[in-house]
Amino acid sequence: MSTAGQVISCTAAVAWEENKPLTLETIQVAPPGANEVRVKLLYGAVCHTDITFMTGKAPAEKIFPRIFGHEAAGVVESVGPGVSEFAEGDHVIPLYQAECSECALCHVKSSNLCTYTLTMTGGYIHPSQECRFSKDGKPIHHFFNTSTFSQYTVVNQANLAKVDPKAPLDKVFLLGCGVTTGHGAVNKVAEVQPGTSVAVFGLGTVGLSVVHAAARAGATKVIAVDINPNKFALAKEFGATDCLNPKDFEKPIQQVLKEMTHGQGVMYSFECVGGNKEVVTSVIECCNPIMGTASMLGTPEAGATIEVNAVFILMGLKLKGAMFGGYRGKTDVPKLVDLYMNKGLDLDKFITDTLPFSRINEAFDKLQAGECLRIALDYSK
Amino acid sequence: MSTAGQVISCTAAVAWEENKPLTLETIQVAPPGANEVRVKLLYGAVCHTDITFMTGKAPAEKIFPRIFGHEAAGVVESVGPGVSEFAEGDHVIPLYQAECSECALCHVKSSNLCTYTLTMTGGYIHPSQECRFSKDGKPIHHFFNTSTFSQYTVVNQANLAKVDPKAPLDKVFLLGCGVTTGHGAVNKVAEVQPGTSVAVFGLGTVGLSVVHAAARAGATKVIAVDINPNKFALAKEFGATDCLNPKDFEKPIQQVLKEMTHGQGVMYSFECVGGNKEVVTSVIECCNPIMGTASMLGTPEAGATIEVNAVFILMGLKLKGAMFGGYRGKTDVPKLVDLYMNKGLDLDKFITDTLPFSRINEAFDKLQAGECLRIALDYSK
Repeated sequence: MSTAGQVISCTAAVAWEENKPLTLETIQVAPPGANEVRVKLLYGAVCHTDITFMTGKAPAEKIFPRIFGHEAAGVVESVGPGVSEFAEGDHVIPLYQAECSECALCHVKSSNLCTYTLTMTGGYIHPSQECRFSKDGKPIHHFFNTSTFSQYTVVNQANLAKVDPKAPLDKVFLLGCGVTTGHGAVNKVAEVQPGTSVAVFGLGTVGLSVVHAAARAGATKVIAVDINPNKFALAKEFGATDCLNPKDFEKPIQQVLKEMTHGQGVMYSFECVGGNKEVVTSVIECCNPIMGTASMLGTPEAGATIEVNAVFILMGLKLKGAMFGGYRGKTDVPKLVDLYMNKGLDLDKFITDTLPFSRINEAFDKLQAGECLRIALDYSK
Repeated sequence: MSTAGQVISCTAAVAWEENKPLTLETIQVAPPGANEVRVKLLYGAVCHTDITFMTGKAPAEKIFPRIFGHEAAGVVESVGPGVSEFAEGDHVIPLYQAECSECALCHVKSSNLCTYTLTMTGGYIHPSQECRFSKDGKPIHHFFNTSTFSQYTVVNQANLAKVDPKAPLDKVFLLGCGVTTGHGAVNKVAEVQPGTSVAVFGLGTVGLSVVHAAARAGATKVIAVDINPNKFALAKEFGATDCLNPKDFEKPIQQVLKEMTHGQGVMYSFECVGGNKEVVTSVIECCNPIMGTASMLGTPEAGATIEVNAVFILMGLKLKGAMFGGYRGKTDVPKLVDLYMNKGLDLDKFITDTLPFSRINEAFDKLQAGECLRIALDYSK
C-alpha cells in the first residue's frame, strides 16, 4: 500500500546537542511539499564533514536538534506538487550541492554552486523555510539539504540525482560526497595532465579518490602523504607510486617532496585533511610556484584562513578549491555512476566495512580513529 | 666614430648603500659580452619597485654598490658576439622579465616567466656572472637584468624588446614596467569581461593603467580606491566610474564596495599598492567569492604573505598574480607600442613631469610623496 501523502514514522539518528553521540529515535517524516521528494534511504555513510559540523567546528550556525548526514542512496517513495523529473521507485542520490538548473549561478560556467547550496546550512527545507522532520510534534532540523541519517528524508528536487537503476546502491552511495570530491578535484578543478607529478595529503576517502583519479589521469608520480601508515597499502592499490609518513623525516615534508621532484616541486598538490594549517602550508610549499596548482579540498573549521607566500602568487601558483570537486550533482553524478558501471572508477575498495544503521555511532568512532574509509550503513537494519 | 668594442664612460646614479640617496658618478661600462647588447638610454623613470629594493624591503639579496632602474627606453649602441636580432641603432625597451625563447619555461603557455628572470636578482649579468659596470676598477652590480639608472647599460639579448622606430621613446619607455603590468593584469591575468564590475586599489601608474584597461575592456563599473584624493581626477579621465577614499568611511571599504554592488562584491579586484596587508584583505573581501578574481600586482615586501578565508577558496574565488602583467616582454611589448601608436592605449597622461636625469633624486622624492605618476627622466641632461 502506498505511503504517499501520509506521515511516515521511521528510525533516525538524531543529534540533540553539539558534540554528543547520536540517539536512535522514532521520528515523523512529513509528506514532501511543493518541488520536494521523499526518499527511502537504503545505504549511506559517515563523512568527516558531518563530524566537523556536529562538533560545532564548522563555519555555520549551530542548530539543534538536527539530523546530519549527506552521503547516501535510496529510492523515491513519493513526490510533492511540481515535481516532474522524479517518480516513485527512481533510484537516487541526495545532493548536498544543489543544481536547480534555473538560478543565475546554475548558468555560470566557472562555478558549480547553486543558489540553494548557498543557503543549505539554515536547517530548513528551502525555500519553504520549514522542517519535514519532527518527534512528537517538535521540529527537528535539516542539514546540508540532505539529512541522510534517517531511514526517510525529504529533499528539494534540486538536491537529487537520478541514477541508473541497475547500479548497486550499496556502492554508488559513495558518489554523494567523498569519492566525487576527489575525482572532480583531479579532473575538473586541478585538471591533472598526463606525465605530471602529484602529491596528496591525507588518505581518507577524498585523498584516496584523488590518488585513484590522478593515476587514471596519467600522472606518473603520485606521492601519497599520511601520518597513518596503515593507509599506504590501499594507496598503492589505487596507484600511488610513493607513500610518505611525515613523522619519518626530520625536515619538513614539503622539503622532502621538493627533493623527490629535482627541486621543482610537484605540479599538483591536494589538501584532503581539513582544518590543519600546517598541512595547508606543506601542500602550498611542495608545489611548483610557477606552474603548480595547490587544491584545497578539506572542510575548513570556522574562521580558518589560508596563508600563502605573496611571491608564490606573483610567480603564478594557482590556489584552488571547490565544493563537491567542482562537479554539478544532477549533471555529473549519473555520469560517475555510469563510469563505475563501465569499470572506469573503483568504488568497492573504499568500503572497508558494513554495519547496520542502528550502529551508526560505531561508524563515527571508527572513522575518527582512522580505522576505516567508508563503512556502508545498511538502513534496513 | 663608433664606440663599439670600447669601454664607455658615462653618468650613472649609483646606490652605494641601502636606503641612501643615489649619487651621480662617472662610471665605466664594458663592451657587451656574448649574447649581450649595450644600450644608450634616452628616457626612463623611477618605479616604486626600485624603492622597495633600494630600501632593503624586497625579498632578495641586498647587493651594493648597484645601479637600480628597470623602466626605460633607448637605442642599441653595439652588440656582443652571438647577437643576431639586434643591431646598432635599433630602438629598444629593456625587459626586467626576460624572454629567451629557448628555455623550458619560455615554452610554458600558462606562465610568462623565463629562466633568466628567475635569476635576475643576483646582481650580475647572466649567464656570465660578471659585472659590466665599474668605477675606477671597482665592480658595480646590476639590478633586475636592466639597471637603467645609467646613460648606458648592458643587458642580455633575452632582456630586450625591439620596438617601432617611429614610436616616441619619451612615451613608450613606460611600457618597460608600470603600464604594461596594469594592462596585462586586466587583459591577460584577470581577463576582465565586458559588462562587469572592477575595483582598483591604489592609483599609481599600475593602478591607473588597470583603470584605463578595464574601461577599455568594457567594464561598466570601475571603482577606483585611494587614500590620496588628488588621484581621482585622472582616474576619472581614464574611465573610473566611482572614486572612493577609505578615510571617508567609518566602515571597512570592502563593505562599502559590497553595498555598491548589491551585496555581490565586484567581479574583479586589483591590488596595486604593494606590501600592505590591510589593503590585500580589502581586495580579497570586496570580491565576489564565487565568481570573482582578486589580482595581486604590487611588489610584496620580504616574507609578506596573503591570508585568505579558506571558505572563499572553497567557493571558487580566484586569487591571481603575475609579474609584468603576465605578458612576455619580447612578444608583447612591441604589440603594446603598436597599440599606443594606433591610439588604443594612452601613455601621455601617465607622464606628469619631465626632469633631467641629473635630478633623479627629486623624482624619487616626488614619487614617494605621491606628487607624481611618472616623471620622464631625460638622460641627455
